[in-house]
Amino acid sequence: MKHSNVVRFFIGLLIVGLVSCKKDVSTKLNSAISSQHPSLVLTPQGVINIRSHVGSIPIFDQTLAKVQKEVDVEIDHGYAVPIPKDYSGGYTHETHKKNYILMQKAGVLYQILEKEKYAAFVKEMLFEYAKMYPTLPIHPKTRSYARGKLFWQCLNDSNWLVYTSQAYDCIYDYLSEDERNTLEKELFKPFADFISMDNPQFFNRVHNHSTWGNVAVGMIALVMEDDQLLARALYGLKDFDLDKNLKDNDGGFINKDGKMGFFANLDEPFSPDGYYTEGPYYQRYAMYPFLIFAQGLQNKKPELQVVAYKDSVLLKGVTALLNLTDQKGNFFLLNDSQKGMSFYNTSLISAVDIAYHFGGNNPELLSIAEKQGEVTLDDAGLAVALGIKEGKSIPFVKKSVELTDGANGDEGAVGVLRSGPLELVFKYTAHGLSHGHYDKLSYALFDQGDEVVQDYGMARFVNIEQKGGGNYLKENTTWAKQTIAHNTLVSNEISHFNGDYSKGSQHHSEAYIFSVENEVVQVASAKEFNAYPETVLHRTMVIINDEDFDNPYVLDIMRVASDTTNQYDVPFYYLGQVLQTNFEYSKSEVPQLLGNANGYQHLYKEASGLATGENIKLNWILHNRFYTYTAVTSTNDQMIMARIGATDPEFNLRHEPTLILRKRNAKDALFVSTVESTGTYSPVSELAINTYSNIKHLEVVFNTRDYTAINIVTTNDKSSLFVISNHDNDKEATHKLTINDKNYEWSGSYYFE
Amino acid sequence: MKHSNVVRFFIGLLIVGLVSCKKDVSTKLNSAISSQHPSLVLTPQGVINIRSHVGSIPIFDQTLAKVQKEVDVEIDHGYAVPIPKDYSGGYTHETHKKNYILMQKAGVLYQILEKEKYAAFVKEMLFEYAKMYPTLPIHPKTRSYARGKLFWQCLNDSNWLVYTSQAYDCIYDYLSEDERNTLEKELFKPFADFISMDNPQFFNRVHNHSTWGNVAVGMIALVMEDDQLLARALYGLKDFDLDKNLKDNDGGFINKDGKMGFFANLDEPFSPDGYYTEGPYYQRYAMYPFLIFAQGLQNKKPELQVVAYKDSVLLKGVTALLNLTDQKGNFFLLNDSQKGMSFYNTSLISAVDIAYHFGGNNPELLSIAEKQGEVTLDDAGLAVALGIKEGKSIPFVKKSVELTDGANGDEGAVGVLRSGPLELVFKYTAHGLSHGHYDKLSYALFDQGDEVVQDYGMARFVNIEQKGGGNYLKENTTWAKQTIAHNTLVSNEISHFNGDYSKGSQHHSEAYIFSVENEVVQVASAKEFNAYPETVLHRTMVIINDEDFDNPYVLDIMRVASDTTNQYDVPFYYLGQVLQTNFEYSKSEVPQLLGNANGYQHLYKEASGLATGENIKLNWILHNRFYTYTAVTSTNDQMIMARIGATDPEFNLRHEPTLILRKRNAKDALFVSTVESTGTYSPVSELAINTYSNIKHLEVVFNTRDYTAINIVTTNDKSSLFVISNHDNDKEATHKLTINDKNYEWSGSYYFE
Repeated sequence: MKHSNVVRFFIGLLIVGLVSCKKDVSTKLNSAISSQHPSLVLTPQGVINIRSHVGSIPIFDQTLAKVQKEVDVEIDHGYAVPIPKDYSGGYTHETHKKNYILMQKAGVLYQILEKEKYAAFVKEMLFEYAKMYPTLPIHPKTRSYARGKLFWQCLNDSNWLVYTSQAYDCIYDYLSEDERNTLEKELFKPFADFISMDNPQFFNRVHNHSTWGNVAVGMIALVMEDDQLLARALYGLKDFDLDKNLKDNDGGFINKDGKMGFFANLDEPFSPDGYYTEGPYYQRYAMYPFLIFAQGLQNKKPELQVVAYKDSVLLKGVTALLNLTDQKGNFFLLNDSQKGMSFYNTSLISAVDIAYHFGGNNPELLSIAEKQGEVTLDDAGLAVALGIKEGKSIPFVKKSVELTDGANGDEGAVGVLRSGPLELVFKYTAHGLSHGHYDKLSYALFDQGDEVVQDYGMARFVNIEQKGGGNYLKENTTWAKQTIAHNTLVSNEISHFNGDYSKGSQHHSEAYIFSVENEVVQVASAKEFNAYPETVLHRTMVIINDEDFDNPYVLDIMRVASDTTNQYDVPFYYLGQVLQTNFEYSKSEVPQLLGNANGYQHLYKEASGLATGENIKLNWILHNRFYTYTAVTSTNDQMIMARIGATDPEFNLRHEPTLILRKRNAKDALFVSTVESTGTYSPVSELAINTYSNIKHLEVVFNTRDYTAINIVTTNDKSSLFVISNHDNDKEATHKLTINDKNYEWSGSYYFE
Repeated sequence: MKHSNVVRFFIGLLIVGLVSCKKDVSTKLNSAISSQHPSLVLTPQGVINIRSHVGSIPIFDQTLAKVQKEVDVEIDHGYAVPIPKDYSGGYTHETHKKNYILMQKAGVLYQILEKEKYAAFVKEMLFEYAKMYPTLPIHPKTRSYARGKLFWQCLNDSNWLVYTSQAYDCIYDYLSEDERNTLEKELFKPFADFISMDNPQFFNRVHNHSTWGNVAVGMIALVMEDDQLLARALYGLKDFDLDKNLKDNDGGFINKDGKMGFFANLDEPFSPDGYYTEGPYYQRYAMYPFLIFAQGLQNKKPELQVVAYKDSVLLKGVTALLNLTDQKGNFFLLNDSQKGMSFYNTSLISAVDIAYHFGGNNPELLSIAEKQGEVTLDDAGLAVALGIKEGKSIPFVKKSVELTDGANGDEGAVGVLRSGPLELVFKYTAHGLSHGHYDKLSYALFDQGDEVVQDYGMARFVNIEQKGGGNYLKENTTWAKQTIAHNTLVSNEISHFNGDYSKGSQHHSEAYIFSVENEVVQVASAKEFNAYPETVLHRTMVIINDEDFDNPYVLDIMRVASDTTNQYDVPFYYLGQVLQTNFEYSKSEVPQLLGNANGYQHLYKEASGLATGENIKLNWILHNRFYTYTAVTSTNDQMIMARIGATDPEFNLRHEPTLILRKRNAKDALFVSTVESTGTYSPVSELAINTYSNIKHLEVVFNTRDYTAINIVTTNDKSSLFVISNHDNDKEATHKLTINDKNYEWSGSYYFE
């Protein structure tokens, strides 16, 4: 037993023996323990505080017990450090992943519980890695643009180092200087060099991959107190020139403008509102390295003031993420996203705890932590546990919110309208880097946290090896990213920007109106000028709270103006089973392919009908709730009932339905529809309540370049009028308009009564 | 205020005033209150007991508060007694239904709370009905073989009378003799005559419809103390000769053998084990009238000993029903059944409470009542509430169970195998009257209460008007009842018994083995001799609990022997998304119709492949759990990947998948497969655990007329052998067999090691 360790052991005994005069002992300990380690997620003072509270902080104690049990079982089972071989989902991949998570946990347990077995476990495993690493070739799987050594991509190698740095930090004082030298020389330094110097195409860019790379290098730099490495992490590798036209596996440019390093990654993808341009699924993933490193920097380099950086963008990022979840806590599906990812993910547990601890103890975050039922086993987690214990928690109330996109907040936005059980997500952002979808002005609708009008999400089964190694499937490109896979307008069966990433990345939609102060009518409106040549799209999403209806309902006005004659399709991806339509359709004996390209090849056309110019209605049921879609049509508009799943040789797609409203030979056109959640069904009582639409008639009563007006008549013959000013969104402007001989005057960009 | 009412009012005050000496008051009340009314679900003594406990019996108090609130709201809203016009789901139907439920509740509230407003409400509404009824024509909707007056079918009229009798009973003493005379003469007597004498085709048969008819007449007879009417209820209408070949709407014979009346309905469809031949969905519906009437008879005519009748078959019926639910309390889908119906249905609340109160206070029933969270507001509900309060509840443990079918228990059975999270329902019953499906030897599998290998259920959306008025859809006959819609063998694309109801009704399958004592291996085996000419089906379902597996798994051995050459299809209705198959298949550009008739017209063929003689595997995911189906094949067996939804012009069917294993030009054949539930996926942690099959090889190592032996090799190279004796199911018989030079000796009908 080394000297420093002996000291620590005695101190451990001291604490146990002197519970009644903890305070004195703490003070003494503070000076006795090295001020240097731990310093990332734990601090010497934090460790003392944790030890003194353990047993009296329920949420922390529960997590501690759970983690201890989990690690104990694994220590008993034994571990492996296999030669890397597999893609994600495969044995070697999952084993190395398990190892870094275990090491991080064991390190923390060592600090909190002072049991040597945890330190010994980490040490032993680190030396196994140190033995293997120097002779390890590049990973044999070739799919990545930046192959790792332990894993098939540098991204996962970086994950490994981010976690392992924490473990190393926790047992730093447990190791002899010789041991530390060996580990740093054989493992950590070459590891950091490999993911940075040997892979500049991975390290030197603005991308979530690089964030992980930067943070991995930065974390180990903080532990090793290596300023040169830290500079590399913060500002990038200065001496490498990358080809600006290089693309990665996802089709994204590697680095078009030469920005790089941790701060650049903090500048670029986060808007001033904390929205991360790739969308919440990747933001969730990216937040962890940002925040975990920020925590270490706050502890080790407080002069950098990273938490306050860019008007506290990291804290805003956490709030933005929470606001981008549905009532069940699942993230909205913006760009590539797997359904079911939620604020219960461990990254969000860290994020919430760190944001609470370093961000001024916002008590709303405590209510999220309570739902999560878990905290991080570190200084931040202690702060949260104490906050909850002291009864400081207040509810995190999710309201309607618009989050701007772009580094300067001027590249469109995502608008979330919330009213009662409904949540509507309206996307008018920038492209979203390589994970972006071609879905300008698309929307999705949730009812009580269930997706009712869906965004397909991504064509990928993350970590499920038998589906393409758990990686992106080709249908992600051919289907999930295409415009027709979304609830927005497709012109001439071609995706926005012709599905061209470089073109799509140059543009963003324009926010037009976001007005949510009035509970009766909330409006989000946006325009898109670049998705199609010489064509302008203008969509307005409204949630109306009418006392004649049991629930709020959605009004959707999609206006398209073009210099050319086109075919316009607006699909409506309802989820559930058709109950009834009010329109005639003919169903063919067997489905037909809807098209040949741009995602159309993945849709079966099951049935179609021609509109007579009356409103069409689609009535359906999902999760025992009744819904109706009502749309204004023109004579000979086509209704196409289609289903996903064509040209899908490996059954990679979900066979879900859509209703497409098609206008042919149109220049300017207007698509107006409503979505109602009317009532419920109980299979237990077999009682069906309010199964039908409450809308008798939906009509466009005025439509010019300047104004569009929609009249809604309920089954009780009550009329409501919604008018939007199409070119003047000044909140103060006054408008005068005569519709059907009646005069209307109002101020502001829209009128409703 | 009438005299009797004044007395009751004073007594009410007396109780309120004398809480401290309740017992004395109770004794006095007992003699003061009429011994005649109430007498159906409440008794005078019961009412006294309830009043004395109210406020101290949580589950009863909660129900009472809920019902009171509900009735108060409705009394405030006002009510309507409209001229009948609609099918179920429509306004007049739902209104009359609501009325009878409200009257029953208001009657009970009047007895318990002694508030006149409840009695007045019932009285007023009854007089509205009495005013309307005498001139009411037959219901205008013509779909039923027995049209009612208030509703489109006598069945619903009977429902009305069963509930309304209870309401009348509760306010009997509140009414003057004149008022009672008016109601009985104008409403109740003609009502009872209409559903019996005017509709013998409805009243005089053995069928759940008639049960309701008999009970409706019987209930009102008990209240009115009309012995003649009671005899009609108990033994049927004696003087009517029905054409024995008449059929009802569902295609069932009205009355082939002349049996009728309540006791006949108790004799015939219930087996000695309490299984009701139509299946649990209809048993749930039928139990309510049986038990509610039994309760009234116990109170008014205890000498009939109806609860003890046929070895307490009604009590056994309740236990059987509970045993036919999955881990979530939903009924297994046997014959026509709507998914989601469960023991939370009010019929089951009544059934459980009555069975507890009149059936010797079985404490296991209390745990079900606790889950239901509600009791009936009557003597039985009080007994349950007191039992729970006194801590008598013990868990109702559902075990593997075989329930015989047929009045004498000799017409096949349903076998339920339970092991860990798995529940397997194996059907080898009689046809199940008019709600029966052509699905001999079919099975379904549940995992943690989720259906994994499904029975389609019925093609009907009960009470959802926009789907065929909420009634059976034509696809129920053309699809849901057909053999190909089930997990069993189809010969030559023709349904069992050629889909002929009269033929199907003459036969039943034969139970062969049911052995569940050994937790390691549970076996249910049955044979079917009549579904196809000169063809014998023998299926053996096994659940094996092997320590090498995280969960038990299913072994399925379907043996067919025929004198002729046939094509055999065995579909496998997995629910969820395909992850991987180990066999080659080609997917056609657009799906094709699988066939033209017998349900095949409703299946799209999406892909197909030819077996090479190796095991085939289908790996899929459902609710974040991984499953694998493994089947033994012969060279050129065909695998057909199909999907429900073809020839379905109104989108009445759910588009769910199936895998069909097809053997062509076969006489005798053997289908052997396993189903494993291997592991789980978390979309939150994105961790996939045990995604693959643990079975390396599945092989038929012996197959003769006398024995079939299957060898199962795990991925750990552990072999297990299962041998079944095909013709000797004697539990004591000893067997000797040599397989691959190894000798096996055992006693009993099967061997496993």
